[in-house]
This record gives sequence, C-alpha cells and structure tokens, in this order.
Amino acid sequence: MQDATLRNRVGQWLEPSRRSDVPPFMVMDVMAAAARIEAAGGHVIHMEVGQPAAGAPKTAIAAAHAALAAGRIDYTSALGIPSLRERIARHYRDAYGCAVSAERVVVTTGSSGGFILAFLSMFEPGDRVAVTVPGYPPYRHILTALGCEPVLIETGNETRHALTGEVLLAAHRKAPLKGVLVGSPGNPTGTMMSREALSSLIAAAEDAGIRFISDEIYHGLDYAFPAVTAAALSQHALVINSFSKYFCMTGWRVGWMVVPDMLVRPIERLQQNLSISVPSLSQIAAEAAFDGAAEMEAIKHGYQENRRILIEGLPKAGLTRFLPADGAFYLYADVSDFTSDSFEFAKQMLEQAHVAATPGLDFDPIHGRSFIRLSYARSPQEMREAVDRIAHWLK
Amino acid sequence: MQDATLRNRVGQWLEPSRRSDVPPFMVMDVMAAAARIEAAGGHVIHMEVGQPAAGAPKTAIAAAHAALAAGRIDYTSALGIPSLRERIARHYRDAYGCAVSAERVVVTTGSSGGFILAFLSMFEPGDRVAVTVPGYPPYRHILTALGCEPVLIETGNETRHALTGEVLLAAHRKAPLKGVLVGSPGNPTGTMMSREALSSLIAAAEDAGIRFISDEIYHGLDYAFPAVTAAALSQHALVINSFSKYFCMTGWRVGWMVVPDMLVRPIERLQQNLSISVPSLSQIAAEAAFDGAAEMEAIKHGYQENRRILIEGLPKAGLTRFLPADGAFYLYADVSDFTSDSFEFAKQMLEQAHVAATPGLDFDPIHGRSFIRLSYARSPQEMREAVDRIAHWLK
Repeated sequence: MQDATLRNRVGQWLEPSRRSDVPPFMVMDVMAAAARIEAAGGHVIHMEVGQPAAGAPKTAIAAAHAALAAGRIDYTSALGIPSLRERIARHYRDAYGCAVSAERVVVTTGSSGGFILAFLSMFEPGDRVAVTVPGYPPYRHILTALGCEPVLIETGNETRHALTGEVLLAAHRKAPLKGVLVGSPGNPTGTMMSREALSSLIAAAEDAGIRFISDEIYHGLDYAFPAVTAAALSQHALVINSFSKYFCMTGWRVGWMVVPDMLVRPIERLQQNLSISVPSLSQIAAEAAFDGAAEMEAIKHGYQENRRILIEGLPKAGLTRFLPADGAFYLYADVSDFTSDSFEFAKQMLEQAHVAATPGLDFDPIHGRSFIRLSYARSPQEMREAVDRIAHWLK
Repeated sequence: MQDATLRNRVGQWLEPSRRSDVPPFMVMDVMAAAARIEAAGGHVIHMEVGQPAAGAPKTAIAAAHAALAAGRIDYTSALGIPSLRERIARHYRDAYGCAVSAERVVVTTGSSGGFILAFLSMFEPGDRVAVTVPGYPPYRHILTALGCEPVLIETGNETRHALTGEVLLAAHRKAPLKGVLVGSPGNPTGTMMSREALSSLIAAAEDAGIRFISDEIYHGLDYAFPAVTAAALSQHALVINSFSKYFCMTGWRVGWMVVPDMLVRPIERLQQNLSISVPSLSQIAAEAAFDGAAEMEAIKHGYQENRRILIEGLPKAGLTRFLPADGAFYLYADVSDFTSDSFEFAKQMLEQAHVAATPGLDFDPIHGRSFIRLSYARSPQEMREAVDRIAHWLK
C-alpha cells in the first residue's frame, strides 16, 4: 500500500498544522534536569512547579471512595452535576457575599476546559483578545490554537502589575479589541488587583464593548488583601476558577465558570459536543471539597508562613527585587543584577544550589530574561533551606 | 458602574459567537420526555442513550480506590502516564497482533479530547474534512468550532454504509479535502468496515494526500466479524479510541490516540496548553481496566444476546428494515414505512409504548427523518420487553 511515491510525499503532507506550533515550556527542561540530579542522589528543592504539595481535602477523597463503591460513574449533564452547580453558587454567597445564580455556573474540565469554552463562545476567528505579560502562557497559546489573536499588553511595577482601563483603551484605539483576560492573584507575578483597580478596568472594558474574562484560579490564596471576584462587579464578566489550587485538586481536572446569561446555552451546546461532560468522580469530589475548608485553610496558613520566610529571607540572601507577593504561591524575582539570561541563571541555580525555579521567558517573551518565578507551595523547612542555599550560592 | 447607556449596549455586544451556534441534540428532548413519564410512574425502556448499562471493571474500581488511599492525585505528563501508554501499546499486540510503539500513544480526555487534538494538530482553519452521514454529530460540530469545514458524504446500504475510496476521491476532485474521518463500528449505524474496505480507503486517501482519522471507540464490540484497526494498516493514520464503551467507563473521561510520529510533539505541546493533563485517577483506573477483560467479555456477550433478540424480534414486530447490526450497540432502523418524521415517531413511541429511541436527524441532516437509532446496551429482559411493546404499538 505504501509505495515509494507515497513515502516521498508523506513528509510533506503529514506536516503538523501551523497552529499546533506552540512553544514548549522551558520549565519542562528544568524539571528534567532536576530529575537527573535526584536520580544521582541529589536533593532538589522544587520551586518550579505550580502545583500544591498537599492533596485534596479528606472530604473530597471520602466522597470519591463512596461514589466508586456506589456504582457506575456515568456521564453527567453537560453543564455539570446540578448539586455541584448549586454548591458553587452558594460559595459566592459565603465567600464574597455575592448572589450568583446556579443557572450561570458551568462546571468545566479544569480551568483549561473553561478557557476553551469561554474563547469559543465569545470570540470569532481573527478576534483580538488582550492578555497581560508577564502571564500564564496557555492564555496566548489556546487563543492562537482557536484562531484568535492574543494582544500582549505589558504591565509594570507602578500598577502592581495590574492592567488599567487607560492602557486597555489605548490598545483598543490602535486596533479594536474584542476581549480582555486578566488573572488576580496573577501567575507568575503573585500580584493582586484591588477592588478599585478591577472594577474600573471592568467598567472601561464594558463601556468600550470589550468582553471581560477574569481568571480567579488563585482565589482563596490571598494574603495582602481579600481578592475580589469579577462576578460581584458585573453580570457580564465571565469568571474562570478551578479546584486545582486552593483545594489542591490538580490531577482531578475540575473547575468552573460563572458566565453571562446569554452564554449559558451556547456553552452548554459546545460542552456537549467538545467534552460530553466533565469527569464525574471529580465533580462528586469537588462538591465535597467545600466541606474541607478547615483543612484547606491550614494549608493556606502554611503558604503564608512560606511567603513570610521568603519575603524576609530572600533580600538577605541577595535577591532584593521581587514583585509584591500578594497572593497565589508565587514570587516573581528580578535577577537582572546577576544575569541577562534567566534560563541560564535557573539552570545554574539548579545545578549548583539544587533549587529549581522557572525562567521568566515562559511567562514573558519581552522581559522574561530578567526574571525567575519561585513557587512556595511546599513546606516551611524547604523554604528556609532554599533561602540558605540561594544565599550561599549567590555569594 | 452599569449605567443605562451600557445596559442598552449589552444586548448587542454580549451576543454569543457564531461558531458556538451548534444545534442541540434532539435526544435531549427525548430524554427529558422520558424523565417526565418516569416521574409520573411509567416504566421507560431506555434505548436512546449511547452509554453502557454496566460500570467499569472491578479491577479499575480497585485501582482507583488504591490511588485515592495512596496520596495526592497530581498532574501527569501531558501525553499520559508512561505505564498506561505502554499498556495501550501492548493492547495492540494482544488484540490485533500489531506492533505500536508506546511513543505514538497519547492519552486523552475521552475520545472528545482526542478529536480536538487531532483536528488542531492536522488541520488549519478553513481546511475541508470529510465525514460520513449518518454519523456522530460532534465530528461536524467540533470541526466547525475549530474553524474547519466538515464535508458531509452520504453512505448507503450498498456499501454497508462504508465510505469508499472512489466516493472520497470524487469529493476531493470537486474541492480538495485535507482529511477524512470514519468510524467503524459506526455510530449510529452499527455497521462495520471490512479489512478490505478500510485498507483500500486508507490507500486512496494517503495516495491523494488526504489525512486519515479512524474513530475506533466501539472496537471490542464487534459481532459480525473482527474489527480491524487502522494502526495495522498505516503508520500515517491517526487512531482515536476510548475506555468509555468496551470498558464501560463513560464518566471517567479517558481515551487514547495512536498518532503518526510527526504529530507526537505538536500534540504534546497542544495538550500541555489546552488540558495540562488527562484526569489522573481515570488514567490509573484505565490501566487496570485491561486486567478486567473477562468481566468485559461477559458484558459483550450480553450485547450479543440483545442483538440477537432485536434482529429476530423487530421484523416480527413490524420494523423490518434496519442496517446490518455488525458492532457497537446500535441498530439503525428505517421507519419511513410509518412516518416522514422520525422525531415525531420517536416521540409517540415513547409516549405510547414507553420505549425511548433517538431520532435519526441527530445523526443525519439529509435522510435522518426516515430513521431511528435503538441502543441495545441494557438487559436482555428489557430488549424482549421492548420488542413486545413495539409490536403491540405498531399494530
């Protein structure tokens, strides 16, 4: 069947699509190098991974055991198990004092599934969508894969790395934007938007007809001041969240959105076709996770302690410049005093000090060479040890 | 913040995207009507759902319990847990006598996740991709959502509802095709492609530079003759499969692909960005599911018995014309002797005989008004009862 002619052709016509030409994560190289050091008996402190060191709350685990014992794990409704949608709506009342109808809650396959549904339901191919840099790389890559054009807007220290309405509208005047996506607490920056900053940005966007998407995946992990949900500020904002971070349920792949009324049905039909439904066991566990708040708060206190250790210790160790560590479990450090290539810096810090960090280029194609991201989701002992190792290494 | 001016505008700028305007499934209306009958105390025989009545194999359940007890459920590698990829590769040796390298195996979030990755990695926006009708509606809708153009090709009884190379090339000459997707055993038809039919179609496609995608989600459920995998026929075909059907793991959302070498890295990067990873617990359970083959074979024998009951009983009941029920758990019946509107036919059969079926329009916008799909994934007793009810109702 496969003659020489075909074989000659194959190279040409089996080329991957252009839109699948997404850059890989540099952190993967860091993780591979860390694994090699560990295989050789070294002890690496992992500050490169954006993943909590704890597991799901016991309530979630117990609910999953019970569901497994009870019978079949079937498809669910495309929008999610009704009682989970109700429970999430209640969470908005409990955590933010904000009324959200369960009708507007959509359960998703992680926040990843939420981004795909949000972009497909809001934007046409060719639409321009603003995202901030430094920022989470999949924002840009999912938009590109779905035919949209990510418009990178730089943020700076002077606004706590928050996008302002003024800057958004300036970009919109250059070439019209269809949407804007911001995350607070931010990844990789760890900075947060104040209520005033978020609400004036939303007002500016809505007034200009720019659709607003708020990534709230790190909500619950706020230290500097309480995080504000966009759902409390506008019925037209689309909110994306997940059980991965606060509830430590990364591998379960379950998240949610709060969507504007008009998008509920289109998103339901998209989810029916693109996913059928979200993993059922994960939905059941997620609902029970809300009953594990005490356990999760204890973990959050651990992050707070880690944050304190780093904020106090890193300047003494030599890393004096980093962004305000307001929330999430990230500290974004400026290493331009030491290097013009943070990938090389991270590589050497790993090899010589056995501390793994993520190079900023993964998050910021513009200034990323000056930064590294340190994740503080592990134990306080490890944080103290990391500070000591970095201090020793920088000297 | 939201003044009258803004409110007036909102209706306009919050319109959903055109590409999210996917038709809903009619089967949803049937299911809602069935639920109303059951709420009123009626006993409905569910032949409308494409979901096995059994649960996952005990081996899978046990593995999930063990993983829950053992610790964190973390992200996995984007391409899947290595031992699961190895186990799937071994499955090709065991079930088909065909060597497939684990490197080419990609674990996906159900076959749904596989379609998205396959289409994004192979096709650019605007590319034309042939799909057969009658066929699984998400094929068309996912392609459209991702900016591709589904090209509907009708199949008929004379080829056992298989697409032929001749028909494919005729469509290609009219306007160039970039890809073609077929499923065998098919949904909704239940028909299968012989080795000759599949291999000559693949040869024709590859020779014309048309990429070949084989949906093998119903493999394992073959009764008329053994199903053939496209992986045994070409290194360049992309195979999509899932644990949902044969292994009865619908709600777990875990499937896999065998992909051409050149697509492994692009698909890995897409999955990193679009999903991060596939639900971890589901992957662990899926690996153990392969050890539950005896249990699954017993379930398959139940389907075989159901199929026998329907093939023998339906003609006596009055439904004399249906497609060869070769595999899967579907029987596609021509009801044009009774109606010119199979949706109305299904509605009345449900209301009067309490037997739920799916109207053909869900699968075939062209001739669907003449057909209904009957799923035979439930118990033999229910199948006998269904035949009796249909016989009584048609008289």
